[in-house]
Amino acid sequence: MTREKLVVIGGVAAGMSAASRARRRNPELEIMVLEKGRHVSYSACGLPFYISGQIANPDDLIVYTQDFFRRKRDIDVQLETEVTRIEPGRKIVHALRTGSQHVTIPYDKLVIATGASPAIAIPGADLPGVFTATDLKGTSALRRFLDERRPTTAVIVGSGYIGLEFADAFARQGLRVTMLGRSPVLLEGFEPEIAGQAEEVLQSNGVQVKKNCAVNSITSSPLHHELFVHHSSGSDTAGVVLLATGLVPQTSLAEDAGIRIGSSGAIAVDERMLTSVNSIYAAGDCTETTHLVSGRPVYFPLGTTANKQGRVAGENAAGGFAQFHGIVGTLMTKAFELEIARTGLSMGEARAAGLAPESVTIHSTSHAKYLGGKPLVATLIWSRESLRLLGFQVAGPEGAAKRVDAAAVALHAKLRLEDLLHLDLGYAPPFAPVWEALLIAASEAVKKGRRA
Amino acid sequence: MTREKLVVIGGVAAGMSAASRARRRNPELEIMVLEKGRHVSYSACGLPFYISGQIANPDDLIVYTQDFFRRKRDIDVQLETEVTRIEPGRKIVHALRTGSQHVTIPYDKLVIATGASPAIAIPGADLPGVFTATDLKGTSALRRFLDERRPTTAVIVGSGYIGLEFADAFARQGLRVTMLGRSPVLLEGFEPEIAGQAEEVLQSNGVQVKKNCAVNSITSSPLHHELFVHHSSGSDTAGVVLLATGLVPQTSLAEDAGIRIGSSGAIAVDERMLTSVNSIYAAGDCTETTHLVSGRPVYFPLGTTANKQGRVAGENAAGGFAQFHGIVGTLMTKAFELEIARTGLSMGEARAAGLAPESVTIHSTSHAKYLGGKPLVATLIWSRESLRLLGFQVAGPEGAAKRVDAAAVALHAKLRLEDLLHLDLGYAPPFAPVWEALLIAASEAVKKGRRA
Repeated sequence: MTREKLVVIGGVAAGMSAASRARRRNPELEIMVLEKGRHVSYSACGLPFYISGQIANPDDLIVYTQDFFRRKRDIDVQLETEVTRIEPGRKIVHALRTGSQHVTIPYDKLVIATGASPAIAIPGADLPGVFTATDLKGTSALRRFLDERRPTTAVIVGSGYIGLEFADAFARQGLRVTMLGRSPVLLEGFEPEIAGQAEEVLQSNGVQVKKNCAVNSITSSPLHHELFVHHSSGSDTAGVVLLATGLVPQTSLAEDAGIRIGSSGAIAVDERMLTSVNSIYAAGDCTETTHLVSGRPVYFPLGTTANKQGRVAGENAAGGFAQFHGIVGTLMTKAFELEIARTGLSMGEARAAGLAPESVTIHSTSHAKYLGGKPLVATLIWSRESLRLLGFQVAGPEGAAKRVDAAAVALHAKLRLEDLLHLDLGYAPPFAPVWEALLIAASEAVKKGRRA
Repeated sequence: MTREKLVVIGGVAAGMSAASRARRRNPELEIMVLEKGRHVSYSACGLPFYISGQIANPDDLIVYTQDFFRRKRDIDVQLETEVTRIEPGRKIVHALRTGSQHVTIPYDKLVIATGASPAIAIPGADLPGVFTATDLKGTSALRRFLDERRPTTAVIVGSGYIGLEFADAFARQGLRVTMLGRSPVLLEGFEPEIAGQAEEVLQSNGVQVKKNCAVNSITSSPLHHELFVHHSSGSDTAGVVLLATGLVPQTSLAEDAGIRIGSSGAIAVDERMLTSVNSIYAAGDCTETTHLVSGRPVYFPLGTTANKQGRVAGENAAGGFAQFHGIVGTLMTKAFELEIARTGLSMGEARAAGLAPESVTIHSTSHAKYLGGKPLVATLIWSRESLRLLGFQVAGPEGAAKRVDAAAVALHAKLRLEDLLHLDLGYAPPFAPVWEALLIAASEAVKKGRRA
């Protein structure tokens, strides 16, 4: 009798989590991971810090190596192996190894963890000097370009949190940065008072922020020493351009195999991470998930979610039972000295979900002022009808971001304003003010609700 | 028709919160606060930082002054006015003003916020050079003593979190510190792995820690230049002694007025902070509260709880409706460079409550190691029977303490291990590792539960 075989497509966060969990669940299973790149298991979220210089060696981003998985976990990791087709009927995958050699690999269970790719539908995106930085390969190329060509100016296309992180990274490297955002606000999904803090910190650090800027194309000077980014408000010149316009799920393999794609455009999965096709699971940035506050399917690709989904997929693919119910939309980032975080729905998202949202913004401090507590701005969003908490966002230079965790748990537990008022959150002068921002905001929300 | 009159006994956290909330609720009410000391509304939790020198001016600890309350909130604050008796039948309180003048004050509603006093049942506790530091008066006296007498050695009696904070404060002032704890463990209520971290940081900062030391008496040299602390393992000599042996609720006024005292020894109140006697509320360090994890009444005096209870008492006393359901036992402190925090029940407390507790301790980091993440130790406690989360404790040099907040919310919401596994807690390399300590601990707990 041959051993049952699990094949995992993709070896970054979700894929390696799935493989590792499957191994723990079932020591007998044959496990093979097919990764098109040259590395597995690296921290994609750490890439901006390789550009900023805060991480000198990209190896620091690699959590475990191919060799580690082979020796310690009996997981056969095949690098530079790109899957080209899944045949669910015959339970095989077709792949190209190091670019040319065609191989056919049978599976009993399959996990698709193909991740996402950058959205780059801009003419000129392929010019030398134009980069995306969503994987180690692209980021290493950018790093080499900066070291060799020493550009002094950068244009970042996109004003989401990845754009912010790279604005910080470029500025730390001494580049003059211009950020072009398509939408009228920075950091879509963040409320104006929170995004406003981000805009201030960018500007005070010399980053030029242009909003309402739809980029049409990128062109370059003859020897590519200068790049011209043409947009709805004119054009900007730079020595290097970074495209940070979001991610699109890598779904083509799944689609071609007849796997159902969800309304968000990513692979649809159930709570066990099973796709619409028998024996095929999917996890990570290629899948959609349920937003537990709106109850709707969303595409919200994040490393931490990918790890959780990977574990669940691996557990189930190896014969166990696990479920991933969804997310509450927690996201945090840092730009220069500002921490910015959110959890739950924004006003816009809540409105779109028909949840009659209301919001209040308060000002508080990270901890006791007499010990140097720093300012915090927080926005709380709730439902006028159910009085349920819908979202919480925070910005501040210190101790701000992780404050959304308490609200994230409250969202999981579907707490109402009333439940938040007297939460026993920690207080001590070095860590918090007597009234936590979340409690102050809840109290203001109750007052506002009464007046209405 | 005369205005209805609210009298508040005690003008620190709970008392001033009650008065302020009552004013907001009812602009017509006559509000009088009777405070035996010379200050109202100061941060008692900040007192150690006045001794450490981190706060130069004790006025920084005063949130609002008598004058502020009079002018801005129409609250009549009477300082140096000590209530000596409550007569519920006649609805009056008797008080001594500045030590001698007897006054009688009528009330319609009364809030008792008499706070707590230090437990000092040790012969010699009244010697010069022996201090408690639970209020501004005592702490100011200690500060003067340190400045004038310049002792070089200190003995702290008590090894709870207040003892730790003062060990840090004394050491920052250059004193050699010995800490005498009665119990076999430091920081009662903290699990060994967490308390062990505290012991290590004390020792590495030169604090001598002696456990199992029951102090019998304190004596002094003829001119009080040396104090001798006699205990079950010998005696220690010091230039200054601090008693940090805990707090006892100030209940005598309430008891004399026939108000019911709870099983914890503090004033019993219902969820509206009403005592057993009509029209009399109580709030803050003189009251007991419900531990929402055990469901039992406890005495757990903390500034943040006092503020919440004060608000609820004030709202109700002024004709509104508010409830305080209880606490989950969140507590945090800092000693030297170590942050230590807990929420929920300890193993001992859970056992005493008949909750069949189980625990697991894990090691994690504050954030991504490649960005300098610092170690974290966390202990999670759950019920073998219900699989409910019962407690969570954390220690570490950075970003440790406030991590218990997420667990505190989970305790309020009565979440089970299963619910914790995939909580959408924030991740970004500068703030957190991919798997939060709480999630790792929950996962280990589930595994341990399966093996059992």
